[in-house]
Amino acid sequence: MARGEFETIAALFAPLARGDRAALGLKDDAARLRLSGKDELIVTADALVAGVHFFDSDPPADIARKALRTNLSDLAAKGARPVGYFLSIMRPRSWTDARLAAFARGLAADGAAFDIPLLGGDSTSTPGPFSVAITALGRMRRGTMLRRDGAKAGDDLWVSGSIGDGALGLLVASGNLAKLPAAHRKALLARYRVPQPRLALGRALVGVAHAAMDVSDGLAADLGHLCDASRVGATIELDAVPFSGAAQAAIALDARLRRTAIAGGDDYELLFAAPPSARAAVMRAARRAGTSVARIGHFAGRDRKVRIVDSQSRVLRLAQAGFTHY
Amino acid sequence: MARGEFETIAALFAPLARGDRAALGLKDDAARLRLSGKDELIVTADALVAGVHFFDSDPPADIARKALRTNLSDLAAKGARPVGYFLSIMRPRSWTDARLAAFARGLAADGAAFDIPLLGGDSTSTPGPFSVAITALGRMRRGTMLRRDGAKAGDDLWVSGSIGDGALGLLVASGNLAKLPAAHRKALLARYRVPQPRLALGRALVGVAHAAMDVSDGLAADLGHLCDASRVGATIELDAVPFSGAAQAAIALDARLRRTAIAGGDDYELLFAAPPSARAAVMRAARRAGTSVARIGHFAGRDRKVRIVDSQSRVLRLAQAGFTHY
Repeated sequence: MARGEFETIAALFAPLARGDRAALGLKDDAARLRLSGKDELIVTADALVAGVHFFDSDPPADIARKALRTNLSDLAAKGARPVGYFLSIMRPRSWTDARLAAFARGLAADGAAFDIPLLGGDSTSTPGPFSVAITALGRMRRGTMLRRDGAKAGDDLWVSGSIGDGALGLLVASGNLAKLPAAHRKALLARYRVPQPRLALGRALVGVAHAAMDVSDGLAADLGHLCDASRVGATIELDAVPFSGAAQAAIALDARLRRTAIAGGDDYELLFAAPPSARAAVMRAARRAGTSVARIGHFAGRDRKVRIVDSQSRVLRLAQAGFTHY
Repeated sequence: MARGEFETIAALFAPLARGDRAALGLKDDAARLRLSGKDELIVTADALVAGVHFFDSDPPADIARKALRTNLSDLAAKGARPVGYFLSIMRPRSWTDARLAAFARGLAADGAAFDIPLLGGDSTSTPGPFSVAITALGRMRRGTMLRRDGAKAGDDLWVSGSIGDGALGLLVASGNLAKLPAAHRKALLARYRVPQPRLALGRALVGVAHAAMDVSDGLAADLGHLCDASRVGATIELDAVPFSGAAQAAIALDARLRRTAIAGGDDYELLFAAPPSARAAVMRAARRAGTSVARIGHFAGRDRKVRIVDSQSRVLRLAQAGFTHY
């Protein structure tokens, strides 16, 4: 752990350690973790920048929660249990002590919700925008991690929850979708600002799914990443993609928003591959986790390409203005 | 690991994994580490921002090395062996691919020098300055970590290497010390830009020192932090503080620079406490590590205060313009 400003704000951050002994009270230069010899450590790092990943005017607590949750979403996709996180804050002058205190309260709330302590960190001034870099640690039994490269031709393609709310929420945050009822706008905005890491589902899929990742860059793009890693192709059945009521209402107003939903980012749902023989096991895992899942296609071939087909099995193309037929 | 831009620059960063299996080729959402049940993991996080911790015009390779080395210095202070690191880059438009490639070459050089692989990371655009957040992982036998809170009244106070070169190097970088011979200016600038983490010394001090930390905020301030954590007071004998030839030459030109040397930061030397009975063991550890050490004072009392005394045992005060007598 670095010193300097972090110590001056220690009163704000020390409670986030949640008494975890590994944190050494956030008073040493480093944290100290022990791990059972049967477990392995899963580590992920993600940075968020005001004006890029969130709006500087967003509630500071929401910014904190999004920063932590995007990292937790990576742990969820691997099937890991959270162990702790390290936080680096780059703070401009405009981030007063009051804003930082609200940010710390957001972290405290989610630290409690997900039972994950702050183990160390650093805080520095910056002439630039408020930025947060988090490294999150998880653990799981050795050799059980859900990887990106395990999908096989013949596997089903699944997603959790609903797709597109994050991207549509970003539109709301930018002042669009004014015709949408306020309750829907609010729901989409909430999904954009505070994603829901699917930790319980990820853990339940260990030993069931062949491969998994979280959807952060958009369903189509991230499925492409998974196909690249697994050296398989995939087909999305557009009509099977789960949309929330708010997203459906938005798409009803403007059909082109279906493209936004499929191609946009910030969903933080799980995308995973499982063999058809595991369909009942997947449904059991989803019930156990209390998270809905939808089978939206399948993996086939070795061309590493993502196809999107409509109900008439026509192949669609993701164009800037929506879907077009090949 | 996040996706997006990091994948587009994967060609630059994949070699930094040095083939370490934990990195999964930097192609998954997370890294996966195993640890012997006898070991514990030591983790530290530090962020550096252009215009705050380095100059945006500094050689990109030096910026990379400083970012990694400040983290390695924390591992050194704890006595840990490097295991790997996670990198988050916040990149403005002015950081072209060529600059980023030079940055990656700096990381590659130090990754090889310190045998530490890149295990994961994230890259994002920023409207602000180039910023780097690193989380470094080390390992060591359980229960042997050198902590900040172990110093005892009666212990000797030691530092490694030489003090003040980083702070004087910052003056050089800012266009000062023009009267100093060019070779001295160059030496100080090099110390500011590329610190030397004392990894071998830190490891050799395990079981010998009672407490340790690295000097990043300045000798006086960091000794204050160690005193706070250990609940002891300390006295620095000013004439015993080791200065490099370049620092001595600077101080000869302007005696007030001795204050800069003691109070300035960026040394990344080790500051440690050891009992007088361990003096021979400390010297053996220093020889084994090939790093000089100097005994510069002692710990006494419980007031958590740092005193600086001159050769006539007069207590000095760190004032803005240099030392003053009480």
